[in-house]
Amino acid sequence: MVIIMGVSGSGKTSLGKHLAQITSKPFYDADDFHSSANKDKMNSGQALNDFNRQPWLDQLAKKIKEWSSNGGAILACSALKEDYRKILSKHNTKITWVILNGSFDLIRSRLEKRKDHFFKPELLQSQMNALELPNYGIHLNIDQPVEVLVQSFLNKSYVKESAKIGVIGMGVMGQGIALNCCENGFETAVYNRFVQGEEQVVFGFLSTNTQFENLSGFTDIVSFIDALERPRKIWLMIKSGSAIDALIDEIAPLLHDGDIILDGGNSHYEDTQRRAKELEKRKIFYVGCGVSGGEDGARHGASLMLGGNKSAHKILRPVLDSISAKDKAGNPCQAYLGADGAGHFVKMVHNGIEYAEMQLLAEIYAVLSHQMSYPEIAALFEEWNNGSEASYLLEITAKILQKKEGNDYVVDLILDNAGSKGTGMWSTKSALALGEVNNMMSSALFARYISSMKKQRISLTNRKPKPQKLSSFDLLKLKEAYRFARIINHVQGFNLIESASQKYNWDYIPDEIARVWTKGCIIRSNLMEDLIGSFSDEKSLFKNKKLLSDLCQTEPNAAALIHHAVDQKIALNSFSTAYHYWIALCTETLPANLIQAQRDFFGAHTYQRVDKPLSQFFHTQWH
Amino acid sequence: MVIIMGVSGSGKTSLGKHLAQITSKPFYDADDFHSSANKDKMNSGQALNDFNRQPWLDQLAKKIKEWSSNGGAILACSALKEDYRKILSKHNTKITWVILNGSFDLIRSRLEKRKDHFFKPELLQSQMNALELPNYGIHLNIDQPVEVLVQSFLNKSYVKESAKIGVIGMGVMGQGIALNCCENGFETAVYNRFVQGEEQVVFGFLSTNTQFENLSGFTDIVSFIDALERPRKIWLMIKSGSAIDALIDEIAPLLHDGDIILDGGNSHYEDTQRRAKELEKRKIFYVGCGVSGGEDGARHGASLMLGGNKSAHKILRPVLDSISAKDKAGNPCQAYLGADGAGHFVKMVHNGIEYAEMQLLAEIYAVLSHQMSYPEIAALFEEWNNGSEASYLLEITAKILQKKEGNDYVVDLILDNAGSKGTGMWSTKSALALGEVNNMMSSALFARYISSMKKQRISLTNRKPKPQKLSSFDLLKLKEAYRFARIINHVQGFNLIESASQKYNWDYIPDEIARVWTKGCIIRSNLMEDLIGSFSDEKSLFKNKKLLSDLCQTEPNAAALIHHAVDQKIALNSFSTAYHYWIALCTETLPANLIQAQRDFFGAHTYQRVDKPLSQFFHTQWH
Repeated sequence: MVIIMGVSGSGKTSLGKHLAQITSKPFYDADDFHSSANKDKMNSGQALNDFNRQPWLDQLAKKIKEWSSNGGAILACSALKEDYRKILSKHNTKITWVILNGSFDLIRSRLEKRKDHFFKPELLQSQMNALELPNYGIHLNIDQPVEVLVQSFLNKSYVKESAKIGVIGMGVMGQGIALNCCENGFETAVYNRFVQGEEQVVFGFLSTNTQFENLSGFTDIVSFIDALERPRKIWLMIKSGSAIDALIDEIAPLLHDGDIILDGGNSHYEDTQRRAKELEKRKIFYVGCGVSGGEDGARHGASLMLGGNKSAHKILRPVLDSISAKDKAGNPCQAYLGADGAGHFVKMVHNGIEYAEMQLLAEIYAVLSHQMSYPEIAALFEEWNNGSEASYLLEITAKILQKKEGNDYVVDLILDNAGSKGTGMWSTKSALALGEVNNMMSSALFARYISSMKKQRISLTNRKPKPQKLSSFDLLKLKEAYRFARIINHVQGFNLIESASQKYNWDYIPDEIARVWTKGCIIRSNLMEDLIGSFSDEKSLFKNKKLLSDLCQTEPNAAALIHHAVDQKIALNSFSTAYHYWIALCTETLPANLIQAQRDFFGAHTYQRVDKPLSQFFHTQWH
Repeated sequence: MVIIMGVSGSGKTSLGKHLAQITSKPFYDADDFHSSANKDKMNSGQALNDFNRQPWLDQLAKKIKEWSSNGGAILACSALKEDYRKILSKHNTKITWVILNGSFDLIRSRLEKRKDHFFKPELLQSQMNALELPNYGIHLNIDQPVEVLVQSFLNKSYVKESAKIGVIGMGVMGQGIALNCCENGFETAVYNRFVQGEEQVVFGFLSTNTQFENLSGFTDIVSFIDALERPRKIWLMIKSGSAIDALIDEIAPLLHDGDIILDGGNSHYEDTQRRAKELEKRKIFYVGCGVSGGEDGARHGASLMLGGNKSAHKILRPVLDSISAKDKAGNPCQAYLGADGAGHFVKMVHNGIEYAEMQLLAEIYAVLSHQMSYPEIAALFEEWNNGSEASYLLEITAKILQKKEGNDYVVDLILDNAGSKGTGMWSTKSALALGEVNNMMSSALFARYISSMKKQRISLTNRKPKPQKLSSFDLLKLKEAYRFARIINHVQGFNLIESASQKYNWDYIPDEIARVWTKGCIIRSNLMEDLIGSFSDEKSLFKNKKLLSDLCQTEPNAAALIHHAVDQKIALNSFSTAYHYWIALCTETLPANLIQAQRDFFGAHTYQRVDKPLSQFFHTQWH
């Protein structure tokens, strides 16, 4: 039960209505409970005396008791004197008093601005004279916007160290995670910094989600941190990069030994490694958590990839288990993958695989656009989506191709200039540094870059060769070629993670990664379900007989697709990359010996020999 | 004229012979010029008196005059007393006195070790009593290895601030640059740090290059810096990375305003940017200079790509113009390409282009190995090398394929596992960051990575598909396909430089880059000669009519080659990359609209529309 008190014009009603909205409690104005006699007296311009007030206050006290037992309410009531307040609380109701206070001049200026209100300075003066400020309750200085008052109220009224989890950052992903936590029964505190233009963020979020009583919001970082139970679990959902470092600098001094910061954004794994190391010195755990599933996943169940201190992960588990997606067997799609940057690395590779999966679908779409209508393609994709090639991306692609705007298909209205946000590039850069081949991801990324060269492409259109004769490609073969390229893509992705895990001493449990990727995330698919069992004996997918046999069986159709594309002059950057990668990978003797000879010729780089131990290096005097 | 003096056993002969070797001057031992009478007296065990010495010293003084006018000599002579030395220098010959000094015990222990030498302690004692140490000359403490004494002599005898250029680092490239400078008439000082195991480096270098009188060597950094004329021009030829930072920390305090450090290694351009900025604050110029041409280029004329302060480049020009390769018109292959890291960036891209050029030749070799013998392939390459596809790499490849070891071709003995040293990777990383497509370089780099997966390749050999029937590929078509892919490779390289130049405000003068790359460097070729004129109107090669017409004309043969490779199961990673890049680039409408739709579907990433201004972004509610 909240009673907002203060002189006439201090803003009791405005604050009361805002609080009512945010807390989903009814709002009452004490003045509405006066007897007709009192009302008449006031309307005639006379002030009420305490005899007039007695029955009114008694009546309110009863109401307060009633409201309180029905879940509480917000009441605006001047309650200037301690005696009045005693009467209002006489039924031992728990009341949170909010005292609005401000200068005479400020309140006068406000009252003067009120429409339909004849301001009597002497009335305000007599009220201010009568006001006995209590030494309890939440005192608010009214010289601030009402949103700030709401926040101050929330900050000050909150029970300290009671929230199970705190979420910083109220973008769509942060909101989703917070609500997901609430829905799973965790007392959740959210924080968004209070800056120009974002004043309404927390207030708006709280007021549109009043169904969650276990949700509280803060714009004051100290109060937010204080609201969290220890060890604190703080989930960051803010822009990756320097903003995170700035935030860490701000909150680290407020934290205690063993508190946990979880970074749920797409941070670069090297940043996560650095931060984990720095914060470890301050005895704060920094956990990098890849979150896949977009807005929907954050809200209803995401795929979570964790890296950091193992005991911190244990502390987080109840929350993680609850808010993550569930796999086929009902187990949570969250996994601990190793120290520091492991989670963010795996998430980065997830996105890299996603790039190539999307590009493969785009290339198939390019092939099929020459021979089928959109409804036909969509129908084909829906059919595929009932079988071995089923995937989330295939499913949404079928939907996309059916979406119309008036007579147009939406996809035809979209400019063919694909953007990228970093993880595809990071995947490739890290593969390069690790000496790993991830040319499926990189070919997909470069395909996006080529798409952005729109101007150049238009100017070169007249140079494009024409097919000698138009032909259609067999749909069954296409599906096989699709599987072929997808397997290559997934193998490269897992190889990349294995390589990084070796370098950084992370746990590499590929089955667990595949399992976590079967639900919630963007690359979930039947192929991913198949992969779970594929690592049983061997961590390398290229030793898995089933996959190898799939590749061998589908290879002729991949070859046929390349032939078709070359004949029809359709660019299949990723399919052809997959094909030549596979052929190279099962070629015992590659022409790289010539490259070594060239390097030795012009740069004396030396070479190894087929007939000598690999530890020995040789140089030939070529000239 | 150098006279090494000191008591018997102080090591005059040993030092004298080393100095003679390093300076290419004759060495004489004064004892050899005694009269028969003196020799007899000494052999009988009697000491010579000053009357006996007089004619001998007179005779030596004459000889010294004679040697001096014939280019000088090294003379070992005890010359213990000032009176003796006065006689030796009486013909006003310029003599550098080297005084060897050490303790009685040290010299005694040495003399005792001498074979065929009966040590008489009283004789040494009398010599030490007679010794009048001069207060001039170069005094050396003999308690050090002779190589150190040589260095100390060189360091102390050098005329200060007289060398035009200093070279730090005596690897093959540093040696080449130093000798190149000497040969072009520049007084050159070299420095190599004096560490365990490298004691002989400078000494060895000087003693094998005594034909250059303008060459001097140092192992003491202070003497080295002092030896250079101001503003100092210091050419670093040391390992890129932290070694350069350490060296800068060491020498910067010794330098003066306006001195120039030129980094001739393959430093990362971002390091060069950082160092240039840091040293600019200390008023020292840091110039990044890409050097291509390997050992041979460094020694006889390299291709030099400069970045840094323009006025520093002007100061360096006389040296650069002299030691660089010369283009067809006789102009030096050195160019100023912009501030800070411009030179190293262009060199990095040079190497990236080189990677792809090498890979294309390797792929051609893979194709031809199925249908021709090595001598036939070499003959074909030699034929090609007389025409439009002539290049240094083609030329050396023809030579490589003919090189035999016994009955084996050397290339068959070389393991097919190609290494890489960084610039190919850096090129790709920088292309990724700039949003540029350099998939020719990256496909070549990934092909090297695949080559290193030898174990995996062997285990997968039995999975390799077999060609349905073996066939040969037409050689004329092959040459055309080769040109096709090479043009694509070069265009991508120039695009990458243009993009970086825009970002970093470098001068982008592509004609000049192409010109500098026509001689001296590894990627010099007839195509490069063709390119010089190709930028005349347009900086973009994709607007050059001749190149575009070449691409259109050769495209069918590139297509035919892809078909052939797919049928014959030969991996052509780079050729197929070139092909699909070209087809994509002249495709007006790519399937990237679907990718944008997918991104908008699962991540609300928004998209641009074909029917709306590009400044507007749209989101569709897909579900």
